Parts: sequence; structure tokens; C-alpha cells
Amino acid sequence: MSRVVLVRHGQSVWNLENRFTGWTDVPLTEVGIGEATSAGELMASEGMSFDVVHTSVLRRAIRTADIALDRMDLHWIPVKRSWRINERHYGALQGLEKKETAAIHGAEQVFQWRRSYSIPPPPLDPDDPRNPRFDARYASVPADELPASECLADVVARAVPYWTRGIVPDLRAGLRVVVVAHGNSIRALLKYLKGISDEDITRLNIPTGIPLVVELDSNLSYVSDRYLGDQAAAEAAAAAVAAQAG
Amino acid sequence: MSRVVLVRHGQSVWNLENRFTGWTDVPLTEVGIGEATSAGELMASEGMSFDVVHTSVLRRAIRTADIALDRMDLHWIPVKRSWRINERHYGALQGLEKKETAAIHGAEQVFQWRRSYSIPPPPLDPDDPRNPRFDARYASVPADELPASECLADVVARAVPYWTRGIVPDLRAGLRVVVVAHGNSIRALLKYLKGISDEDITRLNIPTGIPLVVELDSNLSYVSDRYLGDQAAAEAAAAAVAAQAG
Repeated sequence: MSRVVLVRHGQSVWNLENRFTGWTDVPLTEVGIGEATSAGELMASEGMSFDVVHTSVLRRAIRTADIALDRMDLHWIPVKRSWRINERHYGALQGLEKKETAAIHGAEQVFQWRRSYSIPPPPLDPDDPRNPRFDARYASVPADELPASECLADVVARAVPYWTRGIVPDLRAGLRVVVVAHGNSIRALLKYLKGISDEDITRLNIPTGIPLVVELDSNLSYVSDRYLGDQAAAEAAAAAVAAQAG
Repeated sequence: MSRVVLVRHGQSVWNLENRFTGWTDVPLTEVGIGEATSAGELMASEGMSFDVVHTSVLRRAIRTADIALDRMDLHWIPVKRSWRINERHYGALQGLEKKETAAIHGAEQVFQWRRSYSIPPPPLDPDDPRNPRFDARYASVPADELPASECLADVVARAVPYWTRGIVPDLRAGLRVVVVAHGNSIRALLKYLKGISDEDITRLNIPTGIPLVVELDSNLSYVSDRYLGDQAAAEAAAAAVAAQAG
């Protein structure tokens, strides 16, 4: 038996403003800081401990991990980061307010961009200063792997190799692993681990700041999963995400 | 030419309370958070950037690094941590208020424990719950290398191997390195790099939160060093440390 704990970052400034965020590197709100603190307290109260943390390269996940681990007295454990567990890149929609976007492009089009498995939003222009090719943190990523927009299928394609090459070796070494990432990169990992269909995954929602414990067998195949703490609260939080996600 | 930037953590709760801290894992004060922020702003304003950060495994250094790097938009760079650049272990004095300790043991004895190069304070009892052998973060350190008390010579003996095996490989790889550590581990590194005598090192003081830029030649031998920002302010801060250090 093995296990991995997955945590979605707490509320960010653009979650609060209802903007498409994607790879935009916005900070947590005070609510988000509180969620990160609660996540750490919840894991500590269940007697959990970790040997290594994996995060994306985005501030809201990094800070959530730092806060939660500090709360668990585990601020000193080794840290690994990868762009492969970043949030879905939201292309040219990044920064736009969601309701305004629906008013411009139509609610059905926006719903499709948000919820379709395989249709990405319009891409960022190659010369847009927000294009990740201008960002130092992606300098070592081959140009043909850097997205200018992504659908969930794209996130699966780049996140699963990190599971295999980044996380599995730690689990095989017997390390206790926590991953602090994003709604869509966590969905991508769960799709792979649980064998969720392309259609069903579009209805799976991940609440912020509630640790999800995924139990694995000795082959690291999925056995079961559960949210820490109050299950009804976790489900209500996931339903709330469904109402505003993206 | 190569360079390394050394930063001593900001003010901690026990700096403020004038207690011997050593390996006790106390948090930063609000002043310390401000110093970490200023350190980041100063480095950013000088156009500095880094490819990797090295910290001790103590919260006050980790948090200083996190805050300063976030301020520089470098929160995403790889992180390496080692107990070898921890503060000097202060043995049985850890937790004691400095003036009270002087009243009990005599000012001269305490001055010797604080400032002698080769005389360690009384050790922690092996069964003292504060002994590092009970702390998970040191579980992988061989028992005969874990201190129960240290003089500065002991810090040099355990920090220099980390320079050689942990930091030098990064510098040789062309990486821009920042090290966030402690008064005595930074003194230990500078003693080695600058060839400072056992006697002179006891008079060298490191101000909190002011980045020290050490320039090295292509063999990674010491060339020069300077504090970022106002030199007079850095010297005044170092003098203030001399008045209360330990």
C-alpha cells in the first residue's frame, strides 16, 4: 500500500475577482491563506507527515504548500516543482472576467471553453508579453512543449509524465508525498489514476484547500480516495467550484 | 568570475527576546518579515536574479528565503536545504535569556561561550527532548555527526563540506546561487572563503537581512565582498549585532 495526498491551492485574488487565471501568477487572498492554514491543521490533526512536497511553479500553489507545511512543522522537507502540474493555460482568456467574457462570446461558447475536454480557448499571441516563452521559469522547457492555450486533454498529456517520472520514483522509494497544485492538474492526475472517461472528468470538481488522500496498491494503482475532514463539507465545496470553475 | 549572495535571516522571536536560539526553530517577528521583504527588494532593485536557493532547515531562514524570493518573482526556483548551514547549536543554553545567563554563570564565562572560537557551551543531555536526535529533520544525519552543542570551529567543520559538495557544484554549473542562513554559518563560510584567522573571525558580525555579495574567481576563490545598499547602514547593523550577538 502507498498513498499520495493532493491539495488544490486556496483562493487566489483572481478566483475572488472571477477572472480566468491559468498561468497568471496571482497571489492568494486572505481567505486563501486561511484555507492553506486549515489544510495544514487538518493533515496534522490526522497524524499525517510527509517526506517530500511537489508543487507547480505558480505562487498560489507554492504559498499554499509553504503555509500548510509550516503549520505541520514540515517546512524543512525537500521541495520539488514542475510546470507540468501548473493550472491549465487559459490562453487569450487569461485576465478576463468570466461574466463579461460570456457577454462577449456567448454563454455557450464560454461554457465549452471551460468544460470541454478537448477544445482549448483561443491561444495567446506568440508575441504577447504574457506568452510563457518570455518567462524565465519556463526557459528550460522545449519551445514545442510550451502551451499558448490548453484544453484539459492537453493538461493530462503534460501532467501524467510528471506523475510517472517525478512522483512515482518518490513513492517507489517509500517516501510520503504531498502534491500541491491546481484544479485542472489535479483533475488530470485523477483522470489517469482512476481511469475516468473524457466525459465524466468534465463533471469532477476539486475543492480548494481540502486534502484528498488517494490510496494506491503496491503497483501504485488506484484503490480509493477520500477528502480529509467533513465529507459533506468537501462535497459542498466541490459543488460550489462547479458553479464558478474555470 | 562567479558570485554567491549570502543572506542572514531577519529578526526572530528569540532575537527579540534576547534568548540563545541555536537550533530552536522559532519564527520571524514582524520586523524580521520586513527585513526579508527589504532584502528581496534590494536584490531586485540591483537587477539580481538567481537559479537556485540554499537554506538551512530552520524556519527563520526558510521563511526569509521564501519572502525575499517571492518579492523578486523568484518563488519558483529550485530549493535545496541542509542542516549543515544551520545556526550554531547552542547546547544547554538554548532558550535561556542572555542577561539571566550572565547573572548565573558570570559575564566572562558567557562571553567566552558566545565569542570563543573553540569552546562550546555545555551540551544538551542525550535524553533532553530538544536533542536533535529526536527531530525527524535530522533522521538521516549519522548520529556521530549530530551536535548537542557547538563552538564556531564545529560549525566551520560541518558547513565547509556543504560549500564544497552542495554549493560549489551549482556554481561550477554556472548557476546563480543565493544562500539564506544564519550569523554563525555565514561566518563559517566567510572564514573558509576569505581565510580569516580563528581569532579575527570572532570579531566578524553579520547584519540581518542585508545581502552580502561575494565575488569569486574562475577557481571559486575569494576576490571581494560587499553588502548591498548603504554600506554605512550595513556596518552599523553589524556593529549592533556585535552588541547582542550569540
